[in-house]
Amino acid sequence: MLTVYSDDHRLQDGKAELVDGKLQPCFEMPRRADMVLDRVKTVGLGEVVEPKNFGKEPILRVHAENFVTFLETAWDEWSALGRSHDALPLNWSVRGMQNREPEVIDGKLSYFSFDAGTPVTAGTWRAATASVNVALTGLEAVLGGARSAFSLCRPPGHHAAAEYYGGYCFLNNAAIAAQAWRDRGAGRVAILDVDYHHGNGTQSIFYERADVFFTSIHGDPRQEFPYFLGYAEETGSGPGEGANANFPLRWGSGFDLWSEALDQACKAITAQGADALVISLGVDTFKEDPISQFRLESEDYFRIGERIAKLGLPTLFVMEGGYAVEAIGINAVNVLTAFEQAA
Amino acid sequence: MLTVYSDDHRLQDGKAELVDGKLQPCFEMPRRADMVLDRVKTVGLGEVVEPKNFGKEPILRVHAENFVTFLETAWDEWSALGRSHDALPLNWSVRGMQNREPEVIDGKLSYFSFDAGTPVTAGTWRAATASVNVALTGLEAVLGGARSAFSLCRPPGHHAAAEYYGGYCFLNNAAIAAQAWRDRGAGRVAILDVDYHHGNGTQSIFYERADVFFTSIHGDPRQEFPYFLGYAEETGSGPGEGANANFPLRWGSGFDLWSEALDQACKAITAQGADALVISLGVDTFKEDPISQFRLESEDYFRIGERIAKLGLPTLFVMEGGYAVEAIGINAVNVLTAFEQAA
Repeated sequence: MLTVYSDDHRLQDGKAELVDGKLQPCFEMPRRADMVLDRVKTVGLGEVVEPKNFGKEPILRVHAENFVTFLETAWDEWSALGRSHDALPLNWSVRGMQNREPEVIDGKLSYFSFDAGTPVTAGTWRAATASVNVALTGLEAVLGGARSAFSLCRPPGHHAAAEYYGGYCFLNNAAIAAQAWRDRGAGRVAILDVDYHHGNGTQSIFYERADVFFTSIHGDPRQEFPYFLGYAEETGSGPGEGANANFPLRWGSGFDLWSEALDQACKAITAQGADALVISLGVDTFKEDPISQFRLESEDYFRIGERIAKLGLPTLFVMEGGYAVEAIGINAVNVLTAFEQAA
Repeated sequence: MLTVYSDDHRLQDGKAELVDGKLQPCFEMPRRADMVLDRVKTVGLGEVVEPKNFGKEPILRVHAENFVTFLETAWDEWSALGRSHDALPLNWSVRGMQNREPEVIDGKLSYFSFDAGTPVTAGTWRAATASVNVALTGLEAVLGGARSAFSLCRPPGHHAAAEYYGGYCFLNNAAIAAQAWRDRGAGRVAILDVDYHHGNGTQSIFYERADVFFTSIHGDPRQEFPYFLGYAEETGSGPGEGANANFPLRWGSGFDLWSEALDQACKAITAQGADALVISLGVDTFKEDPISQFRLESEDYFRIGERIAKLGLPTLFVMEGGYAVEAIGINAVNVLTAFEQAA
């Protein structure tokens, strides 16, 4: 399987995020991607290539123009105030408040985000766009006839919505790839999100659309970030009714429950008649993940790859979360090697 | 003028708030109230009394029951996880997300707040309820025939809405007092908010009601916290249409512009036919305030007191913001002494 990777991910290297009421070193760190790349090479998964540059057009197919402009200029506006530390927002527009973009950078950070754990840094824009290019270059390989490709994206993307960032995500790599796949001829794209956290951004982007089916297995939002999306009752709306399927699981769930949900999600993908598949590949379901509460073991990731392979669809793997850094490479690549071997 | 004050305000002593992307010592600190009390005594404003306890009932006339329960139990839930540092939330329910109360404390903090700058501490509930009692005890004095009273509330209240806290505010002292005044027979209460920041909580509580008129002079939300409420176009809705009047002013505004807005706000209060007046008395409009951008001088606060006195209404002053700590007493008490002398 081809792997697409860019060193530009290192440009996103936040110093601190607000967790449990404290500013802590970021869990989402460059070493995560390094560990996955190492493992890809160790097992000989296949060729590793640099991304091509696809420009802003495919991003604007998914994200609002004012949001993209904000991400591109946020650091300049922030640093123009003499600030050299990471940019974090202060407050948010919650229920009953206006949704209007303020004029000043502190207000814009507040308007275009949904958490206080995703620092905007000097390199955020370059890293986030490189990550999109990694996703789209992987898609190119599949469009060129490969059965699958692995886009080793960093920063991740699935929490980023059309017009807000958060959860370590700025641009939604998986959603941009799914949209590009539709634009390049796929009839119906399925996105299967196996990250521990609900892919609220991806869901919201396609929630009213029938042509992209989104399904996710994740920590129950009653207990887990992002808290305010990911309920089983969220099944899509308007033309998208029925094209969204969430499988929230309680803290402490192991592979027995998780694999049942995976089987249901896969059956739904088949029932939906998808002809293209994007996997939001997070491995923070691992039992040793420092911010998550599922109990998957490294061996279980082989089973995930095998089950996905059974779908028989052209498949783009897009890297998302996973914060047990020493194991992230093993777990992610276990999915990929099992998928390959199940060919 | 009677001053009501409780030492219990010291129980709210947050260690850190997220400002400009950094956790910084809280601007909203116990010394603020100490300085105001000192000045009250220095100028001999009048008697200083302790508050009576009014219990939860008047709070529940304004705030949602699940929110009040949350505030009462949040620290216990937080500290039960072994955490001894201040509680701050992580993420928020922004546009398109669900408004459902999560089961866990981190999710509840996120659900019931709108910023990352308002730490919940071991003493928050006691301090916030004492602050409400300070407001209501001041109201008792006015109901007993006094022309005015000064409720030296801390923590402040005007950013707190029916079901969320933020902006250093937990329970909305001014709104609770206005509601209690209505419940005790006032026909129409006017709330004049002269704090530098828009009183988004107060506005939202009474937005659909005609019986409480809210008017505020504040930093333009395009430039200033809380960013997502406080526009001039917000005039009330439903039965409350016309009973809300905002006067946003740009950064750098001095007393020339500010006093024009005050005159308009006062004329509106008269036109509305209010028979009771609550002043949300913030003095962060001062030129040396560390987090604000207006340019009022200490002498200007005399003029504010005089203009308010001209309204000829029974008046309850409720302390809100002001972070130029060394000057906060002088500025707040200048308003009060001028009001007294204009009798």
